[in-house]
Amino acid sequence: MNVGIVGGGQLARMLALAGYPLGLCFQILDPATDACAGQVAPLIQGAYDDATRLEALAAWADVVTFDFENVPATAAQVLEQRVAVYPPAGALAVAQDRVAEKTLFWELGIPTPPFATVDCWEELPGAVVQVELPAVLKTRRLGYDGKGQRVIRTVDDLEPAWQALGGVPLILEGFVPFEREVSVLAIRSSSGEIACYPLVENHHRDGILRLSRAPFSGPDLERKGWDYAQRLLNRLDYVGLLAIEFFVKDGRLIANEMAPRVHNSGHWTLEGAETSQFENHLRAILGLPLGATAAVGHSVMLNCIGDLPEPAAVLAMPGAHYHAYGKAPRPGRKVGHLTLRAADPAVLAHGLKRLLPRVGLEADAI
Amino acid sequence: MNVGIVGGGQLARMLALAGYPLGLCFQILDPATDACAGQVAPLIQGAYDDATRLEALAAWADVVTFDFENVPATAAQVLEQRVAVYPPAGALAVAQDRVAEKTLFWELGIPTPPFATVDCWEELPGAVVQVELPAVLKTRRLGYDGKGQRVIRTVDDLEPAWQALGGVPLILEGFVPFEREVSVLAIRSSSGEIACYPLVENHHRDGILRLSRAPFSGPDLERKGWDYAQRLLNRLDYVGLLAIEFFVKDGRLIANEMAPRVHNSGHWTLEGAETSQFENHLRAILGLPLGATAAVGHSVMLNCIGDLPEPAAVLAMPGAHYHAYGKAPRPGRKVGHLTLRAADPAVLAHGLKRLLPRVGLEADAI
Repeated sequence: MNVGIVGGGQLARMLALAGYPLGLCFQILDPATDACAGQVAPLIQGAYDDATRLEALAAWADVVTFDFENVPATAAQVLEQRVAVYPPAGALAVAQDRVAEKTLFWELGIPTPPFATVDCWEELPGAVVQVELPAVLKTRRLGYDGKGQRVIRTVDDLEPAWQALGGVPLILEGFVPFEREVSVLAIRSSSGEIACYPLVENHHRDGILRLSRAPFSGPDLERKGWDYAQRLLNRLDYVGLLAIEFFVKDGRLIANEMAPRVHNSGHWTLEGAETSQFENHLRAILGLPLGATAAVGHSVMLNCIGDLPEPAAVLAMPGAHYHAYGKAPRPGRKVGHLTLRAADPAVLAHGLKRLLPRVGLEADAI
Repeated sequence: MNVGIVGGGQLARMLALAGYPLGLCFQILDPATDACAGQVAPLIQGAYDDATRLEALAAWADVVTFDFENVPATAAQVLEQRVAVYPPAGALAVAQDRVAEKTLFWELGIPTPPFATVDCWEELPGAVVQVELPAVLKTRRLGYDGKGQRVIRTVDDLEPAWQALGGVPLILEGFVPFEREVSVLAIRSSSGEIACYPLVENHHRDGILRLSRAPFSGPDLERKGWDYAQRLLNRLDYVGLLAIEFFVKDGRLIANEMAPRVHNSGHWTLEGAETSQFENHLRAILGLPLGATAAVGHSVMLNCIGDLPEPAAVLAMPGAHYHAYGKAPRPGRKVGHLTLRAADPAVLAHGLKRLLPRVGLEADAI
């Protein structure tokens, strides 16, 4: 079977590496000649809306998927006329617009922070009254890793935030003073089969995910998260892996955002779950039975931001696994991740203290 | 770091897939344009003794390794003049000649069956007296998967065996009525660090490995096997992964043969050990710390001979993992393997009964 992937970053790279053992072949479309997935699979270099290249990919592939959610709607349309495309374009459209996303959450009974649309400066005061401060002003589209958002603590913050972000459609969201952040990774196959991974606890710095830990022990929260994920998957007639990020506050899950693709907070599944998120995404879009999602031991995933730690220092630690993405170092760029796995949570905690400084975090960061 | 691999079969393929997360790049030399490792890494198509191509590989690579032991001695020499080559040519030379191999075992105090060289028909009767029947007549070189050998039960078998094999240097080995077959997978890094995997129990049919199970519970045997492996690794100044196949008889290990490379009986380590044999071979030849070799649960690996089972039927089983090699089906050809892993040996045994018929074995085969 031939799988086309639009987008050639580390997610595409890890999808291909997970797919080869299933006997799959890959082609990747990316505008960058040095897209890191191109090191492990044939790269079609071209713009995401280049109809000729999209048609070539569609003609070759049995199924096409994405490694990012901001695929131009036109690209998804060109592809969908010719080949099976998962996740469905409708799910991409929802995920591309924070208002559509939060509106859908609300319709499905999934709690969200209060929110209001802000299309022009004049609408901002009304939104502040509706949402209440503190709040976060965000672009409706194309935000990621904390980009395209500003925290509004007082009315004095409004004008600078507007200067930074205004001119495109915005959303004002209530700021949630959360106790922790968690995510749910759920998969739905083209046959309708659904599976969910154990709950993941996430730690961000400056809007960028730095650390994920799983399984997170919280049976009630996990049950809720799985329930919410299933509502979303079924409503969207979703096929593939979907991630939902939640805030935890007073024993409640409050949905922050969803990602219609394999997700950074699921990288621990490569070693820490019976079947990785990458393999399960491929199984889902190919209509194969989903693999077991149970955790194998306890895992922590650490993102390598900017540059990679010395491999020898990491690999000398029992249970440590190294994932370089083949990307050049650059400040703020995700260039790899480490996973530490142990059968015993106490052993994991001990190893984690030693590993944290390797990725620029303090030994007592979590 | 750039790693060259001479030989582009499934072992090279799995080495590359294990090496990408370490940030490695690969080039593969193989005479076949459709060598299956070429689906996952750039392929240099050329003969193993093509000096121009070997020089190009050596110029590009930081280290060169092999996916099979019968690399022409001239090829290893061309490479060694230009680049680090592991395992060392001396280990390849020993492994290429059953007499050199068994002589080295004997020197190191590693038990072997009785054996005698047979260079011409006239030497055969003397060898039979020395070794005693039943025995196995084998070519000294280029035998694999049961090819190039004949069992001699009575003197009547001598002439047909000679007709089939004679004309090249032979070895006559005493036939061991073994209780079981096991293998030891051991790694030595260029820094001299050594690690050994849990003992593996193997089942062959018609000379071809069909099933490996690990960890095999036999602490005394395991201690012996690890000791023998360490003697070999140190004597050969070995770097990389080495496999030794043993017969078990009356609580003793009797060495059958060694393979100076990653080994079919170590494929279970992809899911069943903390670090796979492929990653550990790469760590060793790059001078990186070796990864933990502890088993993660209990695993059985089943070879797919001739063709692959339907993926859906296999993947529907919890704990089952599918490894297609991207090779065309052909009778007797290893085209993939399956691994079944479970935390509980009873669960594993139950699943195994269901999986065995998928690879052409009876449900009660082991």
